[in-house]
Amino acid sequence: MSAGAVVTVLELVGLYVFATSGALMAIHKGFDVVGIVILALLTALGGGILRDVIIGDTPPPAFAHLTYLGIPLAAAAVTFFIHPLAQRLSFTVLVFDAAGLGLFCVTGTLKAFEHDLGPIQAVLLGITTAVGGGVLRDITARETPALVKADTHLYAIPAAAGAVAVAAAHEAGLPMPPVAVAAAVFVFAFRLAAMLRK
Amino acid sequence: MSAGAVVTVLELVGLYVFATSGALMAIHKGFDVVGIVILALLTALGGGILRDVIIGDTPPPAFAHLTYLGIPLAAAAVTFFIHPLAQRLSFTVLVFDAAGLGLFCVTGTLKAFEHDLGPIQAVLLGITTAVGGGVLRDITARETPALVKADTHLYAIPAAAGAVAVAAAHEAGLPMPPVAVAAAVFVFAFRLAAMLRK
Amino acid sequence: MSAGAVVTVLELVGLYVFATSGALMAIHKGFDVVGIVILALLTALGGGILRDVIIGDTPPPAFAHLTYLGIPLAAAAVTFFIHPLAQRLSFTVLVFDAAGLGLFCVTGTLKAFEHDLGPIQAVLLGITTAVGGGVLRDITARETPALVKADTHLYAIPAAAGAVAVAAAHEAGLPMPPVAVAAAVFVFAFRLAAMLRK
Repeated sequence: MSAGAVVTVLELVGLYVFATSGALMAIHKGFDVVGIVILALLTALGGGILRDVIIGDTPPPAFAHLTYLGIPLAAAAVTFFIHPLAQRLSFTVLVFDAAGLGLFCVTGTLKAFEHDLGPIQAVLLGITTAVGGGVLRDITARETPALVKADTHLYAIPAAAGAVAVAAAHEAGLPMPPVAVAAAVFVFAFRLAAMLRK
Repeated sequence: MSAGAVVTVLELVGLYVFATSGALMAIHKGFDVVGIVILALLTALGGGILRDVIIGDTPPPAFAHLTYLGIPLAAAAVTFFIHPLAQRLSFTVLVFDAAGLGLFCVTGTLKAFEHDLGPIQAVLLGITTAVGGGVLRDITARETPALVKADTHLYAIPAAAGAVAVAAAHEAGLPMPPVAVAAAVFVFAFRLAAMLRK
Repeated sequence: MSAGAVVTVLELVGLYVFATSGALMAIHKGFDVVGIVILALLTALGGGILRDVIIGDTPPPAFAHLTYLGIPLAAAAVTFFIHPLAQRLSFTVLVFDAAGLGLFCVTGTLKAFEHDLGPIQAVLLGITTAVGGGVLRDITARETPALVKADTHLYAIPAAAGAVAVAAAHEAGLPMPPVAVAAAVFVFAFRLAAMLRK
């Protein structure tokens, strides 16, 4: 698989898991089916649209490709039928959120490099992409964002670490596919361990 | 009237009704006169600025034409003196919101076509324009956005239907003025019926 | 000192004081150290990024210069160690917020002129820059924004007055350094007086 294909796959999986976290949050808050779809879309697409608007890459791809719409919709539909199996909704929201965090801090950083930004900008945009959708989800659902909540100091740190690792590998000219996958998995595992340790 | 003039009129009426919904919400929440003006401006201009930033049409017209400032200010002033006549403030907020929803899903969709975007992008931007101001109003006033609230599943659906109808008519080359007006009226009436049926 | 140097100094002081207000708010809400850093960054950089995205100056300088990152981080660190000295945290948040309001309504207005916008656009962008970071801080911390809260009608008015004064001086060709400093000090003093009078 080429580097571009790997990034695309990570991005699409990220869309799916973030949309799932948004749909679960909507169910947890008692929203109806349209509220579930909206929150799934906002969570999945919010971080990337924020990144694209900041880079100046407008209109954002999320408004151009049907995939960006179809994947969150599929995730919302699956969540709607499967969620009764989830025992603890608010915990499950954070598990999917952790996966999205790992995937989007990688793809956000790489997208910044594609637009010829420097490594520091790339790291900042990677973090923005990773946390943006979740912050918009939490604000819309009137939850204190997981990003700043008292007992989740291990939220922004792993996202930043993932973005820095990807930027460093990019600058060092390392082959991106394995680095990108490893960084995404690392952030997810780190965040999951932090959540389970409590 | 030309198509452009019709769209302009719909846009200006939309500014007025959304500003009124924002001003009423501010009064309902006990904000003072400046808070009323700010929430009126944010509700009226928020969706359009969001749309313009996403399209890349910067700086947005809202920052260039005095009309965009004057109409919401007039709406805030009128609301300030007239509102004691309204019996149920939170319901009246939603009536004006419904009118703005209908008007802006039409004008937002058409503005996207003016910038040579495709029909799907146009529909998404129409919905974003229509719901954006109301979401910003609700978040700033610390209300759960009407867009996702449990008992308002008939909020996003009519806005989407209006945007799709306008986009389809545009693609089919139908004359826009009657279609635009009909779509705006349909969305408003549909939403109103849904609110009254409860 | 040249006009440009004065503006730069005002901007950097504004970053510092807004970051401090964000860090204090985070401490007041019981956020942990990462939450403090995030809220400091969001408050300091939010208004300027909003302004830059609206102007179309992307990517915003905040994503390009390390100073924009370093100053808020320094402010967060200082606040973290000094804050036990502050008697009334929520009042102190507003004092620093008032200083940022004064500084950013000036620099935001001037930045709009640099991008060849007209005086009305410049005033609107000055106000947006001044209030943007605080609104984002309050929404993220789940506080009703100081901008619209019932008893703070003297929030937006001084910011607007400062922006108008700077724009008028710019149009009249007055020397900017003294005007800029005077406007920033005036807004801060006015807001402080309003807060103390209560």
